[in-house]
This record gives sequence, C-alpha cells and structure tokens, in this order.
Amino acid sequence: MEIRVESPGHAPAPVTVTMRTPGNDFELAVGFCISEHVVSGPDDIATVAYCLGGDGPQEYNVVTVRTRVPVDLEVHRRSFVSNSSCGLCGKTTLDQVEAECAPVVSDLRVAATALTAMPDALRAAQAVFDATGGVHATGCFTADGTLRAVREDVGRHNAIDKVIGWAALSGALPLADTVCIVSGRVSFEIVQKAATAGIPVIGAVSAPSSLAVQTADRLGVTVVGFLRGERFNVYTHPARVVVNA
Amino acid sequence: MEIRVESPGHAPAPVTVTMRTPGNDFELAVGFCISEHVVSGPDDIATVAYCLGGDGPQEYNVVTVRTRVPVDLEVHRRSFVSNSSCGLCGKTTLDQVEAECAPVVSDLRVAATALTAMPDALRAAQAVFDATGGVHATGCFTADGTLRAVREDVGRHNAIDKVIGWAALSGALPLADTVCIVSGRVSFEIVQKAATAGIPVIGAVSAPSSLAVQTADRLGVTVVGFLRGERFNVYTHPARVVVNA
Repeated sequence: MEIRVESPGHAPAPVTVTMRTPGNDFELAVGFCISEHVVSGPDDIATVAYCLGGDGPQEYNVVTVRTRVPVDLEVHRRSFVSNSSCGLCGKTTLDQVEAECAPVVSDLRVAATALTAMPDALRAAQAVFDATGGVHATGCFTADGTLRAVREDVGRHNAIDKVIGWAALSGALPLADTVCIVSGRVSFEIVQKAATAGIPVIGAVSAPSSLAVQTADRLGVTVVGFLRGERFNVYTHPARVVVNA
Repeated sequence: MEIRVESPGHAPAPVTVTMRTPGNDFELAVGFCISEHVVSGPDDIATVAYCLGGDGPQEYNVVTVRTRVPVDLEVHRRSFVSNSSCGLCGKTTLDQVEAECAPVVSDLRVAATALTAMPDALRAAQAVFDATGGVHATGCFTADGTLRAVREDVGRHNAIDKVIGWAALSGALPLADTVCIVSGRVSFEIVQKAATAGIPVIGAVSAPSSLAVQTADRLGVTVVGFLRGERFNVYTHPARVVVNA
C-alpha cells in the first residue's frame, strides 16, 4: 500500500510504500504518519481517503492523508530511505529520534500477573493468525489486562502503526495508560513508535535488540522481553512492573 | 552497516544501509550486491574492504565493494527505496524480478526425512541464538542433510545474504545442489534472493507469504513451510521433495 501525503502548498506525493495485510488501511496510514513524525499529531490530519479510479488490483492500494499543515516530504523521504532495511541509520537518526520524541511520562503500573496473561490473550484474539499461521500482531491492553484493541499485519511495524492509527482516529492518544504486546522481537523502530504514541510499556514473547533497549532507556519506555509462562525479563524502567512476593 | 559501491566511471556511493549483526560483513556486502542485482555475479567484484579512518563506533560499519563493471547506483537506489518496508513496490518491481531472475534449474531431490531434520540441525548450529535468544539464521544444506554453512543476523534477509556472499566468495555459486532453511517466514524477498543464487529449495518452520508463493512458482523455487516435527507443507514445485511411503 502506498501512503501519499497532500499538504498545503505541496503537491500530493508518496511518503512510503509498505507491504501490508489489507484491512484497517486508514489506521495504518494515520498511524504511520504519526509514529514516523510526518505530522505531529491527529489534529494535523484533515482527511484520509483511498485514491480510487486506478487499475484493478491496485484500486485500494493507495491511501492519501491530507494534512492541515505544510509537510516537507523531501525531509521524510530521505529519512525513510535510511530507515528502510535498518530502523536506524547511524548517529544522525538516533539524534533525530531523541530530538523529536519526548520521553514517555506515565505513572502506569502493571502487575506481573496481568502482564504474563497478555500474550495468550493477544494470541486468542488473532483472527488472521488462526487462518494463516503466520502474521504479526500488536495488542493494546489496559493495566488490568483488558484488551482495548488488536491489529494484525504481515509486518510487525505495520501492526503497531495500525494500533496507533486506531488510537489517533478514536481520540485515544496518547496511550499513556496502556501496555502494548507485540509479536516478534522488539526493535528500535517499535520503541520509537511506542514513545511517539506515549505507550509506557512494550512487551514481547521474543527478545529486544540491544539498540531497542538503549533507545527505550532514553525515551522512558519499559521494555519487557521473553514473556513466557510466568517468566519475563524487564530491560528498562522496571518501576512500572509490580511483582508481588 | 553501510554498503558502498565504487565502480569504473562512478564516484563511490552508498547503495544501502542495513541494521546488521556484526560478523561476516564482507559476505553480507557481496551477498547483498549479488542477490539485489547490483552486480550480475561474483566475477564483477574486484575488492571488498572496510572504509577505515572514520570515527570510533562507526569504524567498521562501512564496507566498500569495488566492481570491475560500471554500476548505475541511481537505478538501484530508487529500487531499494521501494523495497524498503515491503519487498515489493507494485507490478513494476515484480516485472523487474521476472526480467532479472532466470528461473532456477536444478534436478535436486531431497528426501522428506532429510528435510524434517534440518530445522533442528540449523538451530543446533546457531551460536548467536544461544547467547541472545533472538536472532535469525539461514542454513545451507546438501540434499543428504549435511550443513555446509550457517549464518546468523538480526535481519533474516541479511542472514540469507551472508550465505549467498559466503558462496560467492568461496566459488560455490550457483547453489543449485542445496536446500536453504531460513528462520522466520518466507517472504517475497527471500524467494527472490534464493532464485538469484540458484537455490532450488527454501524451507522454513513458519509460513510463506502469498506473494512469496506466487513468486516461487514463477521462479522455479520449491517452498516448504511449517516444517515442524515430521510434517510440512510444500507450496511450489513439489517434485523436488521425495516422500517415501
């Protein structure tokens, strides 16, 4: 799916092309624009629409986000080239992230027992995984373990973008009172997206990368990895995880 | 790691920046250039070297591939932008792949019993996974199940590029007599890279994407998914998998 941005004073232009699982396309477009700092928040977005009238199979594969504020796509396009295969392009990008992302401020506390139940709850809610056996998901939970939203996608970064887009379109940003569980590993990009959306705790069954941990430390995000059965590792900002003796 | 290409008549320029696990960096650079059609084969490559003299932490993060033939990086850079988050950018790229990749021709036959033993053999050879619990790998096996090479990387596409680079640097291309087992899912890009290296069979514990299956069908690659215990699914070109009653 191609995401195009149309802003005052600029011609519509693609900002990214992503391999995605169809569904929740507007959430994906909005979530991407927010989590990648194309816009500074939902209020900057005027409309989201499919670009219809194309040829058959591509008909629903182009989404245009029209913004209320001017967006210099050249800046972002260069940045996404760098981000492409890596999620990072040397110290410049890291500096940008630190400059653009305010650290997450949240008093959220989550009990270890609630946390360890979340991966199974996410898995149980994954309709597309049931059908395919191979698709990523992000689940957004309240601290008591209630599932607020689940989004699936062939790309794990798209899955969290869809959740952020859902939150943006339903007025739920920042997600300061939630725990997000992601399938797959916790990458630098996932931490960056979480911080931008104000998500204080990211959990995963798999490992985080070392860069993800460094970034989470700086950006005030609690990273929990290897969430398996009753065990887990807390890598950063452990005060938010409450373990009762 | 930044991969730079220096070719006759062109100034050295970066062709990609990839988040990678250090180690086998020259294999990664060579494998990437071959599997992404920057060069047409190992004979086009003159030298591979680190660009030393940089500042501290980036010192070993830039590798230059010097080619014997002119390479128009502008073409490739545009293509890698498209490939970034998706592995595909609409029909244009798919057409390019069909044009650039010759279908794999290989009489290889692999017994189901040899195939089902490979995931465990790969896992047993993964030293970095033992230490981290979260890193991808590609294992290159002969049809009788002998492991010829294993390469690990934080990115699954890098892991197969390292294997292709290993083969290129050791004169083992095309890998027409091998089965490659990849961790994670089988993407369109993995199939494209396999076809370019002449790999006739790709196996995985996880699922292939629908686009990976379509591409494998066209490019003559056998895709085996959900390799778990004694069971597996063969999606394309099943004649290469021999199941004895």
